[in-house]
Amino acid sequence: MYHKITPSIISELEQIVGKEFVFTDAERLSAHGKDETEQLLFMPEAVVQPRTAQQISAIMSLANTYKIPVTPRAAGTGLSGGALPVYGGIVLSVVRFNSIIAIDERNLQATVEPGVINEVFQQAVKEKNLFYPPDPASKGSCFLGGNVAENSGGPKCVKYGVTKDYILNLEVVLPTGEIIYTGANTLKNSTGYHLTQLMIGSEGTLGIVTKIIVRLIPLPKNNLLMLVPFKKTEEACQAVSEIFKAGYTPSALEFMERDALDWVSKHVESTIVKIEEDIQAHLLIEVDGNDQDVLMREMEAISEVVSAFDIAEILLAESQAQKDELWKLRRKINEAVKATAISKEQDTVVQRAELPQLVKGIKEIGARYGFRSVCYGHAGDGNLHTRIIKDNMPDEKWNGDYIKKAIAEIFLLCKKLGGTISGEHGVGFIQKEYMHLLFSEKEISLQKQIKQVFDPNLILNPGKIF
Amino acid sequence: MYHKITPSIISELEQIVGKEFVFTDAERLSAHGKDETEQLLFMPEAVVQPRTAQQISAIMSLANTYKIPVTPRAAGTGLSGGALPVYGGIVLSVVRFNSIIAIDERNLQATVEPGVINEVFQQAVKEKNLFYPPDPASKGSCFLGGNVAENSGGPKCVKYGVTKDYILNLEVVLPTGEIIYTGANTLKNSTGYHLTQLMIGSEGTLGIVTKIIVRLIPLPKNNLLMLVPFKKTEEACQAVSEIFKAGYTPSALEFMERDALDWVSKHVESTIVKIEEDIQAHLLIEVDGNDQDVLMREMEAISEVVSAFDIAEILLAESQAQKDELWKLRRKINEAVKATAISKEQDTVVQRAELPQLVKGIKEIGARYGFRSVCYGHAGDGNLHTRIIKDNMPDEKWNGDYIKKAIAEIFLLCKKLGGTISGEHGVGFIQKEYMHLLFSEKEISLQKQIKQVFDPNLILNPGKIF
Repeated sequence: MYHKITPSIISELEQIVGKEFVFTDAERLSAHGKDETEQLLFMPEAVVQPRTAQQISAIMSLANTYKIPVTPRAAGTGLSGGALPVYGGIVLSVVRFNSIIAIDERNLQATVEPGVINEVFQQAVKEKNLFYPPDPASKGSCFLGGNVAENSGGPKCVKYGVTKDYILNLEVVLPTGEIIYTGANTLKNSTGYHLTQLMIGSEGTLGIVTKIIVRLIPLPKNNLLMLVPFKKTEEACQAVSEIFKAGYTPSALEFMERDALDWVSKHVESTIVKIEEDIQAHLLIEVDGNDQDVLMREMEAISEVVSAFDIAEILLAESQAQKDELWKLRRKINEAVKATAISKEQDTVVQRAELPQLVKGIKEIGARYGFRSVCYGHAGDGNLHTRIIKDNMPDEKWNGDYIKKAIAEIFLLCKKLGGTISGEHGVGFIQKEYMHLLFSEKEISLQKQIKQVFDPNLILNPGKIF
Repeated sequence: MYHKITPSIISELEQIVGKEFVFTDAERLSAHGKDETEQLLFMPEAVVQPRTAQQISAIMSLANTYKIPVTPRAAGTGLSGGALPVYGGIVLSVVRFNSIIAIDERNLQATVEPGVINEVFQQAVKEKNLFYPPDPASKGSCFLGGNVAENSGGPKCVKYGVTKDYILNLEVVLPTGEIIYTGANTLKNSTGYHLTQLMIGSEGTLGIVTKIIVRLIPLPKNNLLMLVPFKKTEEACQAVSEIFKAGYTPSALEFMERDALDWVSKHVESTIVKIEEDIQAHLLIEVDGNDQDVLMREMEAISEVVSAFDIAEILLAESQAQKDELWKLRRKINEAVKATAISKEQDTVVQRAELPQLVKGIKEIGARYGFRSVCYGHAGDGNLHTRIIKDNMPDEKWNGDYIKKAIAEIFLLCKKLGGTISGEHGVGFIQKEYMHLLFSEKEISLQKQIKQVFDPNLILNPGKIF
C-alpha cells in the first residue's frame, strides 16, 4: 500500500529541511518509534525536523507523490500511541516549532507554535498575570501541538474546560500540502463549519498544526488545596457529585485509590500523607479565585459536604510547599504505577454521578478476569484513569484476546453509563479496535469520509482512530 | 435540479406525520417562507411538523428519493436567512419537539428537544439553581435547536462562552435518514472526530438535531449592573479591553451607540436613561457571583478603570426593576432600529482591542458610501452588530451591488483586524456571497466536501453558507 523511502527520497527531504534535520540512524529512529504507550515500538524509516509551514507543505507534497506515510510527532508523551509510525515512513517532528510568537495582553490571546512545552507556555503567560488552564500530568514535557491533537485535559479542566475551549484558530498544513487557517482569532465565530474544532482532537490525522492561537484568562490570585481520605471508595466517588450539587465548582477535584497514593508516595519518597489502614481512597480538592476569604468559606462548605461521608482527618495544605508536594504526588501516579508494575491504562469517562458504578464495575470485571486495577484521575469531570495490573497473569493472556475482552467489557460498561472510552488521551493506535463498541457503522463511516476529504491518499498518521 | 412536490408526495408526507401536520395553505407557507432577516420571502411548497426522529428520518428518505429540498426551521428568529427555503420544497418545523426531557441535577446536565424556547429552558433550570448561559436577544422566542444551528451567543457569553461550550452530545437525523449520536454525554471526550462540534453552527446543513444534551453550571446567586455614558465612542471601545486587562471578567459587557439607546428608549417608552447631549456611546456592564461584597468591590474597581476615560455619571441599577429595564433596552435595540428605519444588520466580530478601529472604519465606509449606521452589541467578545441605515439611499443602490460593495468593505476591514463576518448569527443566505473574502478556495472546498459527506444529494438546507 505504502512505498518505502529510498536514498533519493532522503535527498529530496534533505533539500527541503536541510541535511542536518533528516535522520536515519538507528538510535534516532528507535527514539521516534515509541511514545509513553505501553512497550510499543514501530520503527520509522526517517525522522525529519522541519522549521516552517512551507517546509512541511513540501514534505507533504513529496509524501503524496510517493505515497509515503507521515506521522506527526510532538513530545511523544501520548498514552494512546497516536505518535507511533505504525506503517513506518516519515516521522515529522515539530520539536523545532518551539517559539511563543506573541502574548497579546490587550486581547488576552497568544500565538504559539506546536513544539512549545505546555508548562513553559503556562509560566510565560503567568508572568503577565494570565492563565492557560489545560494542564496534563505531563505538562513539564508535553507540547501544545500534542495537546491540540489529543484535546488534552488535566486537573484544572473541571472548572476551566479542556484544550478545545481555549483554541481560537489554527494554522494547519493539510495532508495535501496546502496551508490553511481553520478559523479567525475571535472569541466568537459562526462563519462556516468549525474546522478548528474538527482539527482539535483529530490526533494528527487531518493536518499538521503549525500555529496555535489561544485565548487566555486572568490568572486567579489565590487557591486552597485539601486532601480528604475516605474509608470507602464508593463514597469518595459519591462525594464528587455532591460537591457540585451543593453549588461549588472546585478548580480541581482529583480521585486517587489507596494503591495509587501509596505507590506514588513510595516512588517519590514523600511522607506528607500517612495513609491509615482503613482508608480506601482520597479526593484532592482545590478551589481558586481572587478573594482569600471567599475561598476559605468555600473550602469550609466543601468540607461540610464531604463530612457527610465516612472520612478521616482532612489535610489542608498550609504552604505552597505542601501544595506542591500534594500535586507532585497526584501528577506522578502514572509514572509510579508504571515503575511498580506492568500495566495497561484506560482513559474511561462517564457522567460524574456514575463514577461509583464505574469503579465498582471495573473491580467486578477485574475479579472475573483475575487482575487488580489502580484507579485515579479527574473525578470532577467523570474522567477516571484505570491501570490494569499484570501481576502474575500469563503473557499470552496479557498480550492476547483475553485481556482485550476484559478491556472491551470495561468500555461497554462506560457506554452503558452514558460515557465513552477516552476523555483526554485519544483513541490513537491502541483503542481503535474498540471503536465499533461505541459508534454505529454510519458514525464511523462519516468520520472515515471526513478523513478522506482532508487526506485522499491516507498518508497522514495512518492506522490511527479507525 | 430539484423536483417539485406533487400531490402524491404530499400524501406520502401525510402518511409519515399525519394529515394534520402537513400544510400547503398559502398563509402557512408564507409564514414559513420568512424569518427575521430583512424583508426576504421564499415560498416553500409544503410545511411539515414531525414529532419524532423516526418521522424525520422517513421524511429525509422520501426527500432523497425525489430530490426535494428540505429546510429545517426552529423559531424563525434568525438574522442571516438560515431558515429560508430558498429552493422551495419542504420546510421541516421542529415546533413540536418542545419537551424538556430531563434535568439531571446529579450530573448538572439536561436533555432537551430542539423546539424548546431558550428562555423557557433557562427558567426551568433556574428553578433548580442551575444556569444555562447562552442567551440571544431573542431568547423569549428562539428555540434551542436554532441556537445549536447558529452557535448562538448573547450577553452572558463574554464570561460563560457560547452555545458550543455547553453542548455535550446531539441526536441528529442525517440528510440520508440515519439517526446518530454525535458524541457522548460526558464533559470530556477525545474519542474520534468531534462531530458534535462540527454539527454546532452548521446552520442545519449537515443534519437535523432532534435531541440536545447540555451541561449546566451552578446559578450565580447575585449580580450587579451599571450603565456608563462615554463622551467619545472610541473611548467606550477602548475601555472594553482595559477592563479585561485589569483582570476583571464581567458577566456582560455591552456596547451601545448613542442612536441605539436613544431609539430604543423611545421605542419602549423608557425614561430610565437621560442621554445628555455630549454622550456618544454607553457600556452596560454586569458582574455576577455568589458574594455580594466581592461583586461590589469588582464594580468599584471597574468603575475606576472606566473613569480614566471621559465619562458622565455612572448609573448603578438599584433594584431588580431597574436591572430589568436596562436589559430590556439592550435587548430591544434590534427591534427598535427595525421599527425606526430600513436597515441591514451585519454581525461583525474582531479581537476586542480592535473594536475602536472597527467602529471608526465602519463610520468611514459609511461616510464614503453615504449611509449612517447604528452599532451595538457584545463588546466584551469583540462582537459588534452594525445596522446600516437606508435613509434616503435610492432603492437601486440599497438593493444592488452598491451596498454590497460597502458591506464587502466592512467585512474586509474585519478580516484585516483579525476578525470575521459572523460572531453569532451565522452566514446563512445573506452573507454567503462574501465567504470568498474570508476563506481561501481550499478552505471553502474542504467545507463543501464535508457537506457532501453528510448530504450527497445536497437536499438539506441548500443555498446556505456556500
